[in-house]
Amino acid sequence: MVVGCLIQHDNKVLLCKRKIQPSYGLWTLPAGYLEIGESATEGAIRETREEANAEVEVLSPFAQLDIPLIGQTYIIFLAKLKKPHFSPGPESSECRLFSLDDIPFDSLSFSSMVVTLSMYAEDIKSGKLKFHYGVINKRLGTSPSDIHAYTLDNHMQS
Amino acid sequence: MVVGCLIQHDNKVLLCKRKIQPSYGLWTLPAGYLEIGESATEGAIRETREEANAEVEVLSPFAQLDIPLIGQTYIIFLAKLKKPHFSPGPESSECRLFSLDDIPFDSLSFSSMVVTLSMYAEDIKSGKLKFHYGVINKRLGTSPSDIHAYTLDNHMQS
Repeated sequence: MVVGCLIQHDNKVLLCKRKIQPSYGLWTLPAGYLEIGESATEGAIRETREEANAEVEVLSPFAQLDIPLIGQTYIIFLAKLKKPHFSPGPESSECRLFSLDDIPFDSLSFSSMVVTLSMYAEDIKSGKLKFHYGVINKRLGTSPSDIHAYTLDNHMQS
Repeated sequence: MVVGCLIQHDNKVLLCKRKIQPSYGLWTLPAGYLEIGESATEGAIRETREEANAEVEVLSPFAQLDIPLIGQTYIIFLAKLKKPHFSPGPESSECRLFSLDDIPFDSLSFSSMVVTLSMYAEDIKSGKLKFHYGVINKRLGTSPSDIHAYTLDNHMQS
């Protein structure tokens, strides 16, 4: 299980540029593997601290995205900064707030980030944040690094 | 990860009486461990087929409940019967529809079932089904079989 935070601040979202493989140099929400004994929210808060030196308050669940091909499930929470401070942690080269129109959709690290940020942008435009479930299936014969080579199946909203 | 279905039918919910340990003889939603290569919805549909011989359509995500003490996360979906047919599978001795007022809250199999069905009953009474996240922490010094010996922490709704 991979847990992470979608941090809203001044109508922008916080992204981190990865300083590690895979997807070195590409942008991601602060997120990482849940550890033993943690709840999903505790893990998401810890990963945000590690990757962006930011202390956040989790506001609500935002998305569950299953990727059966690689046995991963992403759990993403909406969150806000407790203080307006952040800086790159050891696994990031840069952390930056992006307005929705400036999100670097072609330089994101993983398909899960494309899906999460697309759902978020649509919710913001529609004026209502929802909880989303979906299954990300990579298209056969495509490279893992082709972040747009997926289908989003069974998308449901609460 | 444990995945399951909360099946709504004629203003009732479907519960199964467990014919296996742990919690033999107690009532549960159809639910079980996610298998490799499955999405959460696929697993929930399979478990419902196995435990209740029922074919369901998943309608929406309903709850994520983390139990950090035992490293489990429950993912529960709202679902409906494709046909009004169900019967006990090999791990169940009985399957039955319960109206909200008749749910056997003192004879449920696990704390996760108490929490899920309590949230559902409250949502139905309030007229609005939501998505729920929460952390179930067992109270120290209590028995795993005491299904009411927990605190529900960090409960958030979308």
